[in-house]
Amino acid sequence: MPEDARKRARRRLSIARGHLDSIVRMLDDPEVYCVDVLRQIKAVQGALSGAGDVVLRGHLEAHVATSAGRGDSVELVEEVMEALRYR
Amino acid sequence: MPEDARKRARRRLSIARGHLDSIVRMLDDPEVYCVDVLRQIKAVQGALSGAGDVVLRGHLEAHVATSAGRGDSVELVEEVMEALRYR
Amino acid sequence: MPEDARKRARRRLSIARGHLDSIVRMLDDPEVYCVDVLRQIKAVQGALSGAGDVVLRGHLEAHVATSAGRGDSVELVEEVMEALRYR
Amino acid sequence: MPEDARKRARRRLSIARGHLDSIVRMLDDPEVYCVDVLRQIKAVQGALSGAGDVVLRGHLEAHVATSAGRGDSVELVEEVMEALRYR
Repeated sequence: MPEDARKRARRRLSIARGHLDSIVRMLDDPEVYCVDVLRQIKAVQGALSGAGDVVLRGHLEAHVATSAGRGDSVELVEEVMEALRYR
Repeated sequence: MPEDARKRARRRLSIARGHLDSIVRMLDDPEVYCVDVLRQIKAVQGALSGAGDVVLRGHLEAHVATSAGRGDSVELVEEVMEALRYR
Repeated sequence: MPEDARKRARRRLSIARGHLDSIVRMLDDPEVYCVDVLRQIKAVQGALSGAGDVVLRGHLEAHVATSAGRGDSVELVEEVMEALRYR
Repeated sequence: MPEDARKRARRRLSIARGHLDSIVRMLDDPEVYCVDVLRQIKAVQGALSGAGDVVLRGHLEAHVATSAGRGDSVELVEEVMEALRYR
């Protein structure tokens, strides 16, 4: 993965981790409201999807640029479709 | 939220946070493989969905049981649909 | 399912079917642009989700209103969670 | 889109349309069970996702193979990410 994409993905995931941490603390409160918890969980899932897109884009940039030069475009398509299974 | 559901949701989210922590550390490695990162992100998202279902079920159990007694079944339906917007 | 919800779900699904029909015809054109096809497929999926919410809401309205009277609120929660597996 | 992908996507979408047609007819029955309807809607959504993957793969195969030759790999990455917004 290109260094820039790796660092940006790492930063986004760190922020998501802090957010998730705050949800765990919310749940220490016996009076917590369930819809608030669901809303916060959804927000973290959105943040994780965003981080996944950064990773995927880094992957594409690193591989597409060189694929035709290496003559492995068939393999690249397989790799992209494989990556998308986890998106 | 019923105490049992709250504790189970808290435990699941703590585990997801630990998992997310390990993904952040994976990204310190310049040689990390993008598809592995995407796969781990997907796994955390699955864990968050599971925790969300625990919260939702707790919400239903707490409210459905008493709704007709209180005569507020219309409001309950609205609340469930609202909760599902974040699911 | 309450008649009103059933009819509204039916109408929405008929519209989605017409939309899907037009995508099938788009694909008769050798020059069709892939991103347009993906965008149309996504729109139909959104329409199907909307129809699913109509069905689910009808289900809740029909069952919640009477559940405590019948004393089967545990069963109702199971049914709702079951319905959500397909949402 | 390559002809092969276009025809396969068209065939899959035709099948999904037939399935959706049968759900519309299910809803003519006043006794239809809501969970069955939700399950069928979910199945059609899965079929649409499968058709979308055929379209996306055709797009990648058509473009990746020639992108480095045309020197437009940056543009290709943008196009793929754009396509994924609708996936």
